[in-house]
Amino acid sequence: MTLSTPPRLITLEGGEGAGKSTVLAALRGALEAAGIEAVYTREPGGTPLAEQIRGLMLDTHHEPAVAETELLLAFAARAQHVRATILPALQRGAWVVSDRFTDASYAYQGAGRGLDLDFIADLERRVVGIRPALTLLLDVPVEVGLQRMRGRGAADRIEGERNDFFERVRQGYRDRAAAEPQRFEVIDASQPADAVAAQAVARLRALLAATEAAR
Amino acid sequence: MTLSTPPRLITLEGGEGAGKSTVLAALRGALEAAGIEAVYTREPGGTPLAEQIRGLMLDTHHEPAVAETELLLAFAARAQHVRATILPALQRGAWVVSDRFTDASYAYQGAGRGLDLDFIADLERRVVGIRPALTLLLDVPVEVGLQRMRGRGAADRIEGERNDFFERVRQGYRDRAAAEPQRFEVIDASQPADAVAAQAVARLRALLAATEAAR
Ligand SMILES: Nc1ncnc2c1ncn2[C@@H]1O[C@H](COP(=O)(O)OP(=O)(O)OP(=O)(O)O)[C@@H](O)[C@H]1O
Ligand SMILES: Nc1ncnc2c1ncn2[C@@H]1O[C@H](COP(=O)(O)OP(=O)(O)OP(=O)(O)O)[C@@H](O)[C@H]1O
Ligand SMILES: [Mg+2]
Ligand SMILES: [Mg+2]
Repeated sequence: MTLSTPPRLITLEGGEGAGKSTVLAALRGALEAAGIEAVYTREPGGTPLAEQIRGLMLDTHHEPAVAETELLLAFAARAQHVRATILPALQRGAWVVSDRFTDASYAYQGAGRGLDLDFIADLERRVVGIRPALTLLLDVPVEVGLQRMRGRGAADRIEGERNDFFERVRQGYRDRAAAEPQRFEVIDASQPADAVAAQAVARLRALLAATEAAR
Repeated sequence: MTLSTPPRLITLEGGEGAGKSTVLAALRGALEAAGIEAVYTREPGGTPLAEQIRGLMLDTHHEPAVAETELLLAFAARAQHVRATILPALQRGAWVVSDRFTDASYAYQGAGRGLDLDFIADLERRVVGIRPALTLLLDVPVEVGLQRMRGRGAADRIEGERNDFFERVRQGYRDRAAAEPQRFEVIDASQPADAVAAQAVARLRALLAATEAAR
């Protein structure tokens, strides 16, 4: 399987509390206003089985997953998500907006947990096969993101990590954006939410126009 | 990570109803009679998290897993099982007897579902890293194994497969045994249970003697 880039797949990435869900709502508003059919989904998750896998990754009722297990669970969920949700939507002509996708495995299990990036690339080629046309990276200092999360209840497994882990995740995302500047739009997510949303929606409109022009 | 072969790791393989659990009990009897400490475990499973992953693989309450998801779930559980259960037991000098292990992924997801055997080998090297010293393959005609299973209640996801799937699984196991005759002991499991157990225990005793002599 080689990687292809479906023109109507958009992903949102960033650390905890960067504002991904907030931006997703803004993108949804813009797409709905334009009368464009889209599927809004998230990772880990996006199908009933994949949501159950997410539950195993985040809950704290069993022993912690070793890094390799966490990585393979993420890709198990993603393999399902791609085949059961994303590809069928793209094939019928809909857009797909996903809150996290493969870049999150490079950032969290690669840069964060130190697993081999070549292995992650191999999993991407073998079980995912697609890369988004556009990835919005919401970049924010770790402390700001964590501050936004506080008071949202009990921390799940990932949220309970130490600060140096989140610093590596942030750097992992920035490295990926630097390596693929065409695909990534890096947004300074420490700005007020409406400024962040405006930049995200502007970039979406540019993609819509380019995709329309290419037809 | 390269593959190593811990001398005290034994696995049992075979199709549905071949008699693995029955033979495991016989091996356990022999090891306990000899005063040898051993951990008896199974796959998918063998840790609390890995048992939960097993639950996702076998239950029928969500959409079926695509083949890639099934494979990655099996290796996610195995990565955990190796690090949390098997290696600690081997390191303190215990034997480990596992009802299924990596060969099952080659047979079920490789030969059975048609996934690339090279990818499975890559996962084995990268997240498992060990191969058993001895694998007992209980080989039985598909129809005989399925007959033994009947009347045991509702079929799980795997047990509900068609006969040609199980024929491919059986052949996948036999091919692996033929490629590694030193590691595998193939037992004709259509024999009466006591004859099967006697052959399994005799092979175990030969391994115990060889391992003792090598110290
Ligand atoms: N640009 C912003 N400035 C200030 N607060 C923000 C901004 N964007 C989002 N928030 C607030 O920060 C919190 C986290 O935002 P949001 O849930 O969108 O982040 P997220 O990236 O989806 O988090 P998670 O990683 O948990 O999914 C929310 O309370 C949200 O209202
Ligand atoms: N050699 C044998 N001859 C006849 N019946 C047998 C033999 N071995 C096991 N059985 C019976 O067949 C049934 C299945 O055996 P067992 O549970 O050991 O198989 P298994 O390989 O562990 O099955 P599973 O794949 O479900 O784990 C049981 O009822 C068992 O008593
Ligand atoms: Mg969110
Ligand atoms: Mg059994």
